[in-house]
Amino acid sequence: MMDFPLLLKTFLLRSAKYFPKKEIVSVFPESVHRYTYADYYKRVCQLAHALKSLGIKRGDRVASIALNDHRHLELYFGVPCSGAILHTVNFRLPMNHLVYIINHAEDQVIFVDEDLLMFVEMIKDQLKTVKHIVVLSHTGKKPESGIKNLIMYDELIAQFPEKYDFPEDLSEWDPAMICYTSATTGDPKGVVYSHRAIMLHTYAVAVTFGASEADCILHIVPMFHANAWCGPFAAVGAGCKQVLPGREVINMDKLCHTIAGEKVTFTAGVPTIWMLLYDYLEKGGWHDFSSLKTIASGGAAIPRQLMIDLNEKYNFPIKQAYGSTETTPLATAAIPKSYMADWPAEKLYDVKTSIGIIALGLEMKIVGDSGAEVKMDGKEWGEVCLRGPWIANEYYKDPERSKETFIDGWYHTGDIGTIDEEGYVRLVDRKKDLVKSAGEWISSVDMENLIMAHPKVIEAAIIGVPHPKWQERPLACVVVTPGQSVSADEIKDFLKDKVKAAFWIPDEIIFLKEIPKTSVGKFNKRELRKLYADSQLKSL
Amino acid sequence: MMDFPLLLKTFLLRSAKYFPKKEIVSVFPESVHRYTYADYYKRVCQLAHALKSLGIKRGDRVASIALNDHRHLELYFGVPCSGAILHTVNFRLPMNHLVYIINHAEDQVIFVDEDLLMFVEMIKDQLKTVKHIVVLSHTGKKPESGIKNLIMYDELIAQFPEKYDFPEDLSEWDPAMICYTSATTGDPKGVVYSHRAIMLHTYAVAVTFGASEADCILHIVPMFHANAWCGPFAAVGAGCKQVLPGREVINMDKLCHTIAGEKVTFTAGVPTIWMLLYDYLEKGGWHDFSSLKTIASGGAAIPRQLMIDLNEKYNFPIKQAYGSTETTPLATAAIPKSYMADWPAEKLYDVKTSIGIIALGLEMKIVGDSGAEVKMDGKEWGEVCLRGPWIANEYYKDPERSKETFIDGWYHTGDIGTIDEEGYVRLVDRKKDLVKSAGEWISSVDMENLIMAHPKVIEAAIIGVPHPKWQERPLACVVVTPGQSVSADEIKDFLKDKVKAAFWIPDEIIFLKEIPKTSVGKFNKRELRKLYADSQLKSL
Repeated sequence: MMDFPLLLKTFLLRSAKYFPKKEIVSVFPESVHRYTYADYYKRVCQLAHALKSLGIKRGDRVASIALNDHRHLELYFGVPCSGAILHTVNFRLPMNHLVYIINHAEDQVIFVDEDLLMFVEMIKDQLKTVKHIVVLSHTGKKPESGIKNLIMYDELIAQFPEKYDFPEDLSEWDPAMICYTSATTGDPKGVVYSHRAIMLHTYAVAVTFGASEADCILHIVPMFHANAWCGPFAAVGAGCKQVLPGREVINMDKLCHTIAGEKVTFTAGVPTIWMLLYDYLEKGGWHDFSSLKTIASGGAAIPRQLMIDLNEKYNFPIKQAYGSTETTPLATAAIPKSYMADWPAEKLYDVKTSIGIIALGLEMKIVGDSGAEVKMDGKEWGEVCLRGPWIANEYYKDPERSKETFIDGWYHTGDIGTIDEEGYVRLVDRKKDLVKSAGEWISSVDMENLIMAHPKVIEAAIIGVPHPKWQERPLACVVVTPGQSVSADEIKDFLKDKVKAAFWIPDEIIFLKEIPKTSVGKFNKRELRKLYADSQLKSL
Repeated sequence: MMDFPLLLKTFLLRSAKYFPKKEIVSVFPESVHRYTYADYYKRVCQLAHALKSLGIKRGDRVASIALNDHRHLELYFGVPCSGAILHTVNFRLPMNHLVYIINHAEDQVIFVDEDLLMFVEMIKDQLKTVKHIVVLSHTGKKPESGIKNLIMYDELIAQFPEKYDFPEDLSEWDPAMICYTSATTGDPKGVVYSHRAIMLHTYAVAVTFGASEADCILHIVPMFHANAWCGPFAAVGAGCKQVLPGREVINMDKLCHTIAGEKVTFTAGVPTIWMLLYDYLEKGGWHDFSSLKTIASGGAAIPRQLMIDLNEKYNFPIKQAYGSTETTPLATAAIPKSYMADWPAEKLYDVKTSIGIIALGLEMKIVGDSGAEVKMDGKEWGEVCLRGPWIANEYYKDPERSKETFIDGWYHTGDIGTIDEEGYVRLVDRKKDLVKSAGEWISSVDMENLIMAHPKVIEAAIIGVPHPKWQERPLACVVVTPGQSVSADEIKDFLKDKVKAAFWIPDEIIFLKEIPKTSVGKFNKRELRKLYADSQLKSL
């Protein structure tokens, strides 16, 4: 068989040659931009020339700080197909992390949305390698800015020919993209994606969710999150119509009109968006979901009731998937098996709210304390470990932290889960958040959910604190619903007949005004532990 | 990203672990055999032990002479996953070719259906490398045979444990399967498929036809033809129910009852089968195709009217695909684009009867006489050339013939075709069958179809014969419908207003009793040319 490398170029050329009439739609606040794959390809070629003119060489890193629109999509292919590496920057990171990742990746050029230029302005003096700032502008107006020599993207690429000979001598192992994880401890960690990994992952995504040319894909998940789950790559390869909602992604009225108006069949996003959507729908918001066939959700667990309500009240059936920056990201998907079609609804939602079964092409093991794989009984806990052609084997230029996570050819996710007899995996907790009391594990997530089920509690976080006899005991940090009051004993009573074992019930409950959160809105348990260690964690 | 090899083992383990309850059904003349993927996996493990016991080492070739059933499916994974290579023998080849390919591949063991043992008996004395003959028996009766030491497959594997540690240190470039083409000239040519090629091809097949776990796949295409188009690999990977019809594949009544009874959703086969099916249906044969979603056809062009009739009379919508032994085999598929949905039926059938557009992951060019790519106008002719990760780069141990076909990184298919503005390719002729008259090409296939449209003609073959002035001229070999008579002038008159240009009309028409055919039933033009050269080609 030919030693023909798996390169993104093959996908790009396919849409240009075979689907030139298909549309790419960008939704802006005041207007909608439409063009075809023929137009797209010409601009990607122009961009490739432009990168060369900016001094970008093979292997150089190029940053994007951008929302979802056609210019970002041009970068998605133009940068890697010409041999450079696209670093999709998550601009929601804290400023010091933004500076860190751009310097760590040694980005040479930043392509930045006109609306996001302020982020670059704030950090520009700390950037060590960036030589050019290129503004992705939809208004066409050159922004007033303290940054000198701003380059306007459309003007830049307009100077160049609409054809480009993309290199054929890249290796499939060459890097195409970089993302950084939003680290809860230390600096963000970089993951480099090869052409090979992205191509294989794209096939797997298409097979898992059944995408084809007939689909119209709405990219809700930001293009700076784990390659937008490779939706853009699948769409370009298959010649799908694409809809890029930019900042309008949180405008539910606009989003619903876009779904109906563009006849969207396929979309993917995080639970936060589904919560906004549900809120909008509950308030009687206009919608017509008749074109939708597939809705993938990931990034965090979707609340069961939200999934049920969206499905049953609004015919908005969500399929949950799981992965991380380290997994390109698709690792598992919760698609019920065909013979489950006549299962009772509740049992079927047990399947649908799991993280699912392994994607075609990967291998998984769930390893218990003993080092052996857990039983497929839905009960035994273990750490989810993954391997396969689109799983990272290291963090970029970070051998120390790589060693802790990538062990003997397996990616140790740090997620603790169970696997049932049908192969569906359910996550129990993060490994570092488990509490070990008298040699037995307690899931902090389970306990938090139990406590938050109390009508007078709005938030609850569990951390393990040292105990002279039991090694660790769970400590509950609780925020009471405004206007209510509840005692520690009331909460303990409430838990009694609900916990798996009596020793799960926290000895101590601390009432807080709020629970410290990370930049992505998760409970910051590291901060809680630190406060506790410093004797700063006290009830109101 | 991990350097994790693409190995068939990953697909095998996935179905064993995640789809153990799904069914594999073999249809035999007198009975139906059913078991699950759990059973399948155990037997594949036993087979791997058995191969070792027979002295099969990594890289050794193992032949199958078998129809489509679960035992053949066990060989499909058991052999390559344990590191050996499965040579699926096309027992319909002429005997001398059968001997040639088994010796050329240096097969160590032959696994043969009890019903096909006669083929082995006929050639056994000429086989140079075969050490064991293993009988795949459904009846369980040891055949009476002149072959000594026949091994019974079920007895052989029953001795071994139901677990096997499949090697993890194979390379994805290691060979998994071998097929030989049914050569029209010289000896058959071998194509070796790597694990990598098959895995990638399998993804492409699944993406092209939208296969998923919910599908029930009926394998009509023989498992000795180009890996059964990788249907078995896709099915095992995705955990599909599979139905293997064995020799009952030509029993249309049984086939139709099987489709309905097993709720088949997906099948693939050659036009010969569709003709048999149409005949059966026209005679009022029972059928219920309500479960069927996807029907792929390949191996030869499906007659347009047959496609229309099956679709419109019987709701049996066929999707044409194209490929060859050298392409694993999927290269193109004629799936209309979504925006063609409202095209007039005739125009849509123009699309559906083409060979389609390139599969996701491959690259194609159609190269005209000048060496440049032809225009996408549906008119200019050129040779279809392919490259990609599941395209062969050589014939096995045959450097001379490899050089003629695999040139500068492209597989030259020998098929002459056009490509229209939508990217759909139509084949015009085989390169070697084109007639070049006065510097202009004439398509033998086009002319044959025109002549065969005459009501008194049943068969017509065109060959080019030398001409002192025009270089070559077409010669028509015609078989008249039994009981009819027609003159050469009548045929020429009939062609006048139908041919593309007057010079296409053959000067000479020879009437034959029958047209010599190849082993696969195609016109043997090589034989016609030889007869002509020897002055043996004369009218009745």
